[in-house]
Amino acid sequence: TILSLNQYNIVYNVLSFVIATMLAGFIGFLLIRSSLPAKHRNALTLGTLVMAIADYHYFRIFNSFTAAYHIVGGKYVPTGIPFNEAYRYVDWLLTVPLLLAELVTVLELTPKESKVLISKLVVASSLMIALGYPGQISPVHSTARTLWAAASSVFFVYILYVLFVEIQKSLDKQPEGVRPLMFTLRALLLLSWGFYPIAYILPSFVGGATGIVVSQVGYSIADVVAKPLFTYFVYKVSKLKAEVEEKEEA
Amino acid sequence: TILSLNQYNIVYNVLSFVIATMLAGFIGFLLIRSSLPAKHRNALTLGTLVMAIADYHYFRIFNSFTAAYHIVGGKYVPTGIPFNEAYRYVDWLLTVPLLLAELVTVLELTPKESKVLISKLVVASSLMIALGYPGQISPVHSTARTLWAAASSVFFVYILYVLFVEIQKSLDKQPEGVRPLMFTLRALLLLSWGFYPIAYILPSFVGGATGIVVSQVGYSIADVVAKPLFTYFVYKVSKLKAEVEEKEEA
Amino acid sequence: TILSLNQYNIVYNVLSFVIATMLAGFIGFLLIRSSLPAKHRNALTLGTLVMAIADYHYFRIFNSFTAAYHIVGGKYVPTGIPFNEAYRYVDWLLTVPLLLAELVTVLELTPKESKVLISKLVVASSLMIALGYPGQISPVHSTARTLWAAASSVFFVYILYVLFVEIQKSLDKQPEGVRPLMFTLRALLLLSWGFYPIAYILPSFVGGATGIVVSQVGYSIADVVAKPLFTYFVYKVSKLKAEVEEKEEA
Amino acid sequence: TILSLNQYNIVYNVLSFVIATMLAGFIGFLLIRSSLPAKHRNALTLGTLVMAIADYHYFRIFNSFTAAYHIVGGKYVPTGIPFNEAYRYVDWLLTVPLLLAELVTVLELTPKESKVLISKLVVASSLMIALGYPGQISPVHSTARTLWAAASSVFFVYILYVLFVEIQKSLDKQPEGVRPLMFTLRALLLLSWGFYPIAYILPSFVGGATGIVVSQVGYSIADVVAKPLFTYFVYKVSKLKAEVEEKEEA
Amino acid sequence: TILSLNQYNIVYNVLSFVIATMLAGFIGFLLIRSSLPAKHRNALTLGTLVMAIADYHYFRIFNSFTAAYHIVGGKYVPTGIPFNEAYRYVDWLLTVPLLLAELVTVLELTPKESKVLISKLVVASSLMIALGYPGQISPVHSTARTLWAAASSVFFVYILYVLFVEIQKSLDKQPEGVRPLMFTLRALLLLSWGFYPIAYILPSFVGGATGIVVSQVGYSIADVVAKPLFTYFVYKVSKLKAEVEEKEEA
Amino acid sequence: TILSLNQYNIVYNVLSFVIATMLAGFIGFLLIRSSLPAKHRNALTLGTLVMAIADYHYFRIFNSFTAAYHIVGGKYVPTGIPFNEAYRYVDWLLTVPLLLAELVTVLELTPKESKVLISKLVVASSLMIALGYPGQISPVHSTARTLWAAASSVFFVYILYVLFVEIQKSLDKQPEGVRPLMFTLRALLLLSWGFYPIAYILPSFVGGATGIVVSQVGYSIADVVAKPLFTYFVYKVSKLKAEVEEKEEA
Ligand SMILES: CC1=C(/C=C/C(C)=C/C=C/C(C)=C/C=O)C(C)(C)CCC1
Ligand SMILES: CC1=C(/C=C/C(C)=C/C=C/C(C)=C/C=O)C(C)(C)CCC1
Ligand SMILES: CC1=C(/C=C/C(C)=C/C=C/C(C)=C/C=O)C(C)(C)CCC1
Ligand SMILES: CC1=C(/C=C/C(C)=C/C=C/C(C)=C/C=O)C(C)(C)CCC1
Ligand SMILES: CC1=C(/C=C/C(C)=C/C=C/C(C)=C/C=O)C(C)(C)CCC1
Ligand SMILES: CC1=C(/C=C/C(C)=C/C=C/C(C)=C/C=O)C(C)(C)CCC1
Repeated sequence: TILSLNQYNIVYNVLSFVIATMLAGFIGFLLIRSSLPAKHRNALTLGTLVMAIADYHYFRIFNSFTAAYHIVGGKYVPTGIPFNEAYRYVDWLLTVPLLLAELVTVLELTPKESKVLISKLVVASSLMIALGYPGQISPVHSTARTLWAAASSVFFVYILYVLFVEIQKSLDKQPEGVRPLMFTLRALLLLSWGFYPIAYILPSFVGGATGIVVSQVGYSIADVVAKPLFTYFVYKVSKLKAEVEEKEEA
Repeated sequence: TILSLNQYNIVYNVLSFVIATMLAGFIGFLLIRSSLPAKHRNALTLGTLVMAIADYHYFRIFNSFTAAYHIVGGKYVPTGIPFNEAYRYVDWLLTVPLLLAELVTVLELTPKESKVLISKLVVASSLMIALGYPGQISPVHSTARTLWAAASSVFFVYILYVLFVEIQKSLDKQPEGVRPLMFTLRALLLLSWGFYPIAYILPSFVGGATGIVVSQVGYSIADVVAKPLFTYFVYKVSKLKAEVEEKEEA
Repeated sequence: TILSLNQYNIVYNVLSFVIATMLAGFIGFLLIRSSLPAKHRNALTLGTLVMAIADYHYFRIFNSFTAAYHIVGGKYVPTGIPFNEAYRYVDWLLTVPLLLAELVTVLELTPKESKVLISKLVVASSLMIALGYPGQISPVHSTARTLWAAASSVFFVYILYVLFVEIQKSLDKQPEGVRPLMFTLRALLLLSWGFYPIAYILPSFVGGATGIVVSQVGYSIADVVAKPLFTYFVYKVSKLKAEVEEKEEA
Repeated sequence: TILSLNQYNIVYNVLSFVIATMLAGFIGFLLIRSSLPAKHRNALTLGTLVMAIADYHYFRIFNSFTAAYHIVGGKYVPTGIPFNEAYRYVDWLLTVPLLLAELVTVLELTPKESKVLISKLVVASSLMIALGYPGQISPVHSTARTLWAAASSVFFVYILYVLFVEIQKSLDKQPEGVRPLMFTLRALLLLSWGFYPIAYILPSFVGGATGIVVSQVGYSIADVVAKPLFTYFVYKVSKLKAEVEEKEEA
Repeated sequence: TILSLNQYNIVYNVLSFVIATMLAGFIGFLLIRSSLPAKHRNALTLGTLVMAIADYHYFRIFNSFTAAYHIVGGKYVPTGIPFNEAYRYVDWLLTVPLLLAELVTVLELTPKESKVLISKLVVASSLMIALGYPGQISPVHSTARTLWAAASSVFFVYILYVLFVEIQKSLDKQPEGVRPLMFTLRALLLLSWGFYPIAYILPSFVGGATGIVVSQVGYSIADVVAKPLFTYFVYKVSKLKAEVEEKEEA
Repeated sequence: TILSLNQYNIVYNVLSFVIATMLAGFIGFLLIRSSLPAKHRNALTLGTLVMAIADYHYFRIFNSFTAAYHIVGGKYVPTGIPFNEAYRYVDWLLTVPLLLAELVTVLELTPKESKVLISKLVVASSLMIALGYPGQISPVHSTARTLWAAASSVFFVYILYVLFVEIQKSLDKQPEGVRPLMFTLRALLLLSWGFYPIAYILPSFVGGATGIVVSQVGYSIADVVAKPLFTYFVYKVSKLKAEVEEKEEA
């Protein structure tokens, strides 16, 4: 597919934007991590890891994209080296479990509850991603793409349901000041995770070059919300809990 | 557009100057960050992040520029690889919200006020930048360029108004010695932010190669004031507040 | 052997996934290492080393793979530079002894018992790996491949038996809360180590391009379980022991 | 202009010498910075920054020089890629204000006096540099070169006069042991700063290849004195002041 | 000499294995170095240095090897760039004296005895290495190779004799628990050092491509034992001594 | 000049050896620097800097050498890119003053004596190096080479005389245990510094390719003694003084 100057630049710019965002997230969370007491630091540690992983993966996505097109007569024409369009699934295989662990860490569950919940979520999310992969690499207008998405969505819905319920249950155990933040956390998660299947679907409707642009921009926006923004609010929750605990001990 | 030797060198030199400035800002703010107590460190942490992001982005702008021209017969002629002129918007999408957060952090607002203000400013600044982008990539003498700028300016004015009012309100709550610095901070912000639309507009009047030079120099000057110089004064404010607080506690 | 687009991408993606996983493991274990008291830190230090070694080796595997194939007419055709298929044995020669030392470190053995056990395991694992190497580089359907595997398996079984027995003996000496984790540790080890001979055997049945894919995916899955996941549980055990000890001292 | 083997090597060697000098300055000042109490560390922090900036800029100058000439028949002939001769002005735009701030920091002025003095000096030095730039890029035997130098020299003289007066005034407030060092500091400043206009002028008299050599060597010598040597004496002053203060408090 | 696929891969893999081993040694010893009190840290500091030096040198050996051969028709054929076969002597010139100092540091000698012993060993080892170098670069079947080896072996035997005696004498002064470790240390040294002349000699018997393989594998095995494994046991000795001393002081 | 395989390899290996030596010196002295109290750390800080500078310079020398020759028909033939033979003078211009400062720092002089001595030595050494440079780049059999060496030697002798006298005077003020080390320090200095003029002279007698080899090996040996070995003994002196002082205070 040939891309126009603007289409290429949008994807180029949005991928580079996410590289900078994840880099800033890694540096920033590393710097503020030590302002939390050790007991409340684990969630942010996980978030810091997610930033590093995502930055590595976005460099590879960015380089794959720039290797796939070159400019010929004012248009960006495929070089013959394919753009690795499913590479984001590689990222998700690592970052989604880590983000889920990040969330579970701030839910104030017992160790046993945490373990059971993490296990269920990691298995379900891995299946969700694995079942979406064959669809992602199928042609944009194929039934395979739809069927695989449906299979993936089963686990997507399951995860969201489990998280909704667990966050609801967790709210009763949280300090009062933390509840609004937990709402925000849940909203961010539902909002950002919902972006991914949308970005998956859109190319089937807009297709071609626009489909590539829309898909990359959509996934990138979702990643910025689901990773650094989500982790920032996890940090806020951790910080507030630490302050509440400090006051109680004083 | 063909650039003369001097025109190319001015852009080359000014972009490299900003690389060095942001690098120095990153190293410098990282070194002096620990001289502030933890409670007053957040704004400078945000500023340090802005330096890192801007340095990454300026390297990409610099490399895009040097890939776009090469010397032929004593003139710099386009290579055919386009100069990514809208890349700065990618930088602003990250750095402008961070700079706004940096400012709000020193305004002595309640957590709720901060949150509301940050949210409004982030949304407005994102819209300002997003609405300016299509104009930036439009031809220099098009009406589209003007119309998009007008749309962007609505949010630009809104942000400045909100900041003016909030900084004014904040002055009453500040220690006496901090007020002149807050004035400076506000002046720096209004001054530097005003540069950006000017740098946007000027190519429509001077056009061609001179337009490229004027645009790059203008944006670069604005970035040096809006980022490291602004952050330096944020550090001054934070330091003064910490000293005032220390005296009160003594 | 010619690879399809999908086959190449699966291997490319899975190798890159492991690069990111080991990188995350290195950063993560380095960050949480200091949350353990010095006395209980050794096992995690060994695990951190395994992450660094594995990441270095996976970069080389990844680069060897991408140098071995290039795209011609929509298929990935060999470049003539052979894919270094036995390179993983180089990794195992270092990481397997370190992982065994990691495990022995949490078994609460006397220094003498530790030394004897480590020595036996290191010799046996080195022989297991060395005896598997000639088979790995033999043709997929040769008897040599089978014979070498058989020789290697002798030591494989010996190691597993020794570990099973030692972990069983160790359970009596462990604090009560640690036992379930030790079970998990042992299960992870048996499960992940069992993957390796399976990944070795499978190409003999599926052969050709599919054999390459299956082998790389299989080994990669095994490495992710045997290295970072295993080390994570070693950290859990170390942390729990430190907490138990702290309570007893209080 | 064709350079002889020796002429090329002199410039090559002197530029590389300054790279090493600034690198050593950065490492050295970073290492000894913590031997000063926090209150007396600011000037050295500024000096450390100057080292980093200068090293970055000298790499670019060095690379520009080596790209501009290649050896043909035992002589160094221009490649066609111009040597960026005015790049040093980019460096000065950052380092001169920082060096002035470094000096003002050790002058024991009130915050208000410091601010006024810094402001005046920064504006004047920026004008001095900006007004010298057009002359630097003018032909060696043009009147433009002389006129711009004259304009620049106005601010040059103004700066030196202001510094002379301020350092004189400051001497009365300094501890006795510090005065000789302040004399040295002032002498270094006058001596090194005087080198720059000389290095600017000399090519007009010697011209051609020798002019290039003399200019680069002159500017490089001046930089070594004005940056690391000057900062070393600033460190000496800071250290002596800290010791005097420590004795008074004891 | 033409190498088969397997022969090339064995050397490639074994050199890369040592790169990873020395890297792991450097990281690992750096991490555990601080668990020893300052008084008992010197030997491990020396060992950490040996790791860094060896890793740098192995990269150069590895790159020299990969530059010396390329694949033509399924065989690795010389490129015309010679493999720098004597480069290991460069490594030994630094690492052997450091390893000897590492050993002497744990022998509990008086400062004077240490100095005399180190001096003798460094001179002897330098002569051993220097006298082996001309033989290494002589043809495999020359008398020069034998004669130089004989000369080198004089110093080799002298060193081993001195070390044997000194370690024997040292054993009486060591805490009881340290003696078995000192035996191990001595055994490791004798065992690993003996490998080097064997690796030197073997090509004279097997010659050609097999000689290259056998030589590189032999030297590499010896390096892994003589450097990281040896240093590990030096760490064990240092740690045990520190513990003994701590108990005595308690 | 054409170099044989062995001649090229000797220079290649000896330059790489010094890269490793300076790297090890930098890491090692950085690691042990903190074992000295702050008051006795300055000399080692200077030595650490010398290591960094020398490593940077040796990389450039090494790269210049490898760019100057390539293999043709089993011999190393000049590429046409000249070997920068006088580059070492660039290194000395920085490292010689730093080494002199390193030595003066341990001489227990008054601040005034130190300053006078350092000033004299820095001026004299700079002149010694500057006067040797034109000779170094003169043809090997020219009278210019001899005359410049004679001029340089005047300052060489002056420096050695001054150092001899100062070290002699200093010995009376040193703790008893330090005197033998100061003798060693002086011997090392005289020995190593004497190597440089020898390495300068030898090519005039052996000439051609052998002259290149002898010169590079000679200068390299001298650098290893004059820099890391010398600094190691400076560390020994500093450590002993710190211990003596600690006992006196106890
Ligand atoms: C439901 C669904 C999908 C969902 C993907 C999701 C929800 C991905 C989330 C990724 C995150 C959170 C990454 C951040 O780190 C797919 C696979 C696109 C396939 C189509 C159906
Ligand atoms: C009003 C207006 C604009 C304003 C841009 C601004 C105000 C950018 C500020 C950027 C900053 C502060 C970056 C620093 O970090 C545009 C987009 C040029 C488009 C034309 C109209
Ligand atoms: C039994 C057997 C094998 C076993 C390999 C194993 C068990 C490898 C384990 C590797 C680990 C644990 C690496 C992680 O770091 C081989 C060699 C494939 C050859 C066929 C027979
Ligand atoms: C008067 C004068 C000049 C002065 C330059 C100066 C004084 C530069 C100082 C630079 C420093 C101090 C850099 C170090 O960091 C120019 C511009 C050459 C132009 C000709 C007239
Ligand atoms: C006797 C002998 C030799 C001995 C070499 C030795 C003993 C090398 C030891 C190297 C070490 C210990 C390196 C580790 O860091 C040579 C030179 C091969 C030449 C032939 C005779
Ligand atoms: C007398 C003399 C010389 C002396 C050079 C010296 C003594 C150099 C010392 C360098 C050091 C110590 C570097 C280490 O860091 C030259 C210039 C070769 C020229 C010929 C005469």
